[in-house]
Amino acid sequence: MRLSGERFAVKYRLQGESREEAHARARDICLEQTVEFPEELVPAGFIRDEIVGRVEWLEETGRKTYLAEISFAVETAADELTQLLNVIYGNISIKPGIRVESLRLPPALSEKLRGPRFGRDGLRSLLNVPRRPLLHTALKPMGLTAGELADVAYRCALGGIDIVKDDHGLTNQCSAPFAERVGRCAEAVGKANRLTGASSIYVANITAAPAEMVNRAQIAKAAGAGGFLVSPALAGLGAMGQIAGDDSLGLPVISHPAFQGSYCINPASGISHYAYYGQITRLAGADAVVYPNFGGRFSFSREECAGIAAGTMADMGGIKAIFPSPGGGMSLEKVPEMLAVYGREVIFLIGGGLFRHGPDLLQNCRHFRAMVEQYE
Amino acid sequence: MRLSGERFAVKYRLQGESREEAHARARDICLEQTVEFPEELVPAGFIRDEIVGRVEWLEETGRKTYLAEISFAVETAADELTQLLNVIYGNISIKPGIRVESLRLPPALSEKLRGPRFGRDGLRSLLNVPRRPLLHTALKPMGLTAGELADVAYRCALGGIDIVKDDHGLTNQCSAPFAERVGRCAEAVGKANRLTGASSIYVANITAAPAEMVNRAQIAKAAGAGGFLVSPALAGLGAMGQIAGDDSLGLPVISHPAFQGSYCINPASGISHYAYYGQITRLAGADAVVYPNFGGRFSFSREECAGIAAGTMADMGGIKAIFPSPGGGMSLEKVPEMLAVYGREVIFLIGGGLFRHGPDLLQNCRHFRAMVEQYE
Repeated sequence: MRLSGERFAVKYRLQGESREEAHARARDICLEQTVEFPEELVPAGFIRDEIVGRVEWLEETGRKTYLAEISFAVETAADELTQLLNVIYGNISIKPGIRVESLRLPPALSEKLRGPRFGRDGLRSLLNVPRRPLLHTALKPMGLTAGELADVAYRCALGGIDIVKDDHGLTNQCSAPFAERVGRCAEAVGKANRLTGASSIYVANITAAPAEMVNRAQIAKAAGAGGFLVSPALAGLGAMGQIAGDDSLGLPVISHPAFQGSYCINPASGISHYAYYGQITRLAGADAVVYPNFGGRFSFSREECAGIAAGTMADMGGIKAIFPSPGGGMSLEKVPEMLAVYGREVIFLIGGGLFRHGPDLLQNCRHFRAMVEQYE
Repeated sequence: MRLSGERFAVKYRLQGESREEAHARARDICLEQTVEFPEELVPAGFIRDEIVGRVEWLEETGRKTYLAEISFAVETAADELTQLLNVIYGNISIKPGIRVESLRLPPALSEKLRGPRFGRDGLRSLLNVPRRPLLHTALKPMGLTAGELADVAYRCALGGIDIVKDDHGLTNQCSAPFAERVGRCAEAVGKANRLTGASSIYVANITAAPAEMVNRAQIAKAAGAGGFLVSPALAGLGAMGQIAGDDSLGLPVISHPAFQGSYCINPASGISHYAYYGQITRLAGADAVVYPNFGGRFSFSREECAGIAAGTMADMGGIKAIFPSPGGGMSLEKVPEMLAVYGREVIFLIGGGLFRHGPDLLQNCRHFRAMVEQYE
């Protein structure tokens, strides 16, 4: 067996009492994530030399904390996102004290994982917003009828919100069944566009088991939806990638962080914000990634959020840069500080706060839009 | 709008400085997981009274630690596993200090989520093993050819292993392409069965993006595989459920814990072993759940593993009990202690350790089989 010699690399943050212990942990990752076999029994030759991961370097970065880069043959990932993630963090997700910091993929692998269809430039072009920050809100609360949600959608689009998405908790509840909801909401956003001349889109939440998710995507597209919301920790990262890559759909995908928190909130293990919300979400085909902003009702720090933004645009070969879409408990007052961190390459997501700013939703939206117009 | 009045309930472990703070956190969960809307703006009527979650009780269980039961209208979950999980732990996965301890579903919901096709009884019947503990091993290491893996499969089945599965890292690598591997391995296990008269099965790892996963399931079934291995954190819990529920496939499903660790290894947040590996994996259709046993090279405690076993058989209406399949760095010497914890309703998974016990794999398998025969 001959392998290509091409390798991808992962930086892991490791905890260890000593350099020797940290190196032993890094070596353990090399085996655990590939052959999962007793070291002494690994067959000599290309399995031992190339299939088993390789510690490229290890350095101490703090007290009992080390950073190691480990490389793996691209053939171990077999050109699939699910297996790439398995090699990066499958079994070792169960071993405390190991955190994935970042990924580096050679062209041989990044070309096989298509990533987002639109990315930043494509989404700007679709929305006809060349320069200013984009605006994003969520239809809620659960329990409203399809007609009531469509009315909210209409006012948001009329008020200048570029992306009007379902709240991630709206699926197919009896209060607003999927097909009726997406039909009415898409129609409402279209009607607003005809009045404003804008190109706002309604984004339908299609998160479900995979076959049903494809079914809902088709219904939504036929009804005039302009994109899809997927919570990949619920639906599967590969399932999101399949929606993004489906040429018969051809619409942008927005990733929602529901059920994802466990990967990031424990600083000593899991996956870094940079790698998970940035790099991995890109590889899984999202054009924008929603996550909780610093200073809101969740716990991400300003530094972690800046890390996500960096991960959405870090060089990954041909994989397009995507938009960070920070949200979660944000209010209009926080927009200037967010611009200081993200610059204009951002989609501001304001949900409940948009309803709370003042009694008139349309006016709230216009106020919000005016605030970002100055960054045109 | 009239709701049914049926509710499901979740026990959450919460951290809080005081009872008041813990209650405020519980109340926050009620809103965050349903309407995700400022409390003062939640519409009066059934949305406020029934859609918003309800704190049923809250009790102090330790220093700054509380247990709360929160109930939700079954309509919020809209009869889908993905949305049920979203209500249980979607956004709050991003808030530290909240852990899901257990679920309680009314028949109105458990009847909609079919759960496993076989369960413990069905799998025993399929394997023709009425009473003793079952045996399970993994084909490895990655890098072997399909023929070499089939040879390992043959010896394992001949030696009396009931379930011979692909290692979870075997997908479609060039060293052993999927179709060739499953064809050869299924044939090898069939050949061994003809010699032994047993009903061992070869279980193919089909973990991939959803459409490809269905494709591989069909290929594997046609080739004579007797079950499917799925890593649901990579493929999606809903995707696993879809494979389990597909009548055209009709084979057992085994769940692998790759990429799942982040949900459980941080004791102050995430999901309990009982709920995640036990209850949720059952709801997602697995007939057996693989997880790292206590005392192996992973970190789960004896108590956590006993919790998993309890979750695999706790009353969940019509959802069948499934098998715990503890593995990970186990050796033959540990079998007696494992029997003390699990009793005979267990599938022992021994991977690398089976190869290490002695130089002759067939003899190792027979030794292992003899050890459980006494529990017939």
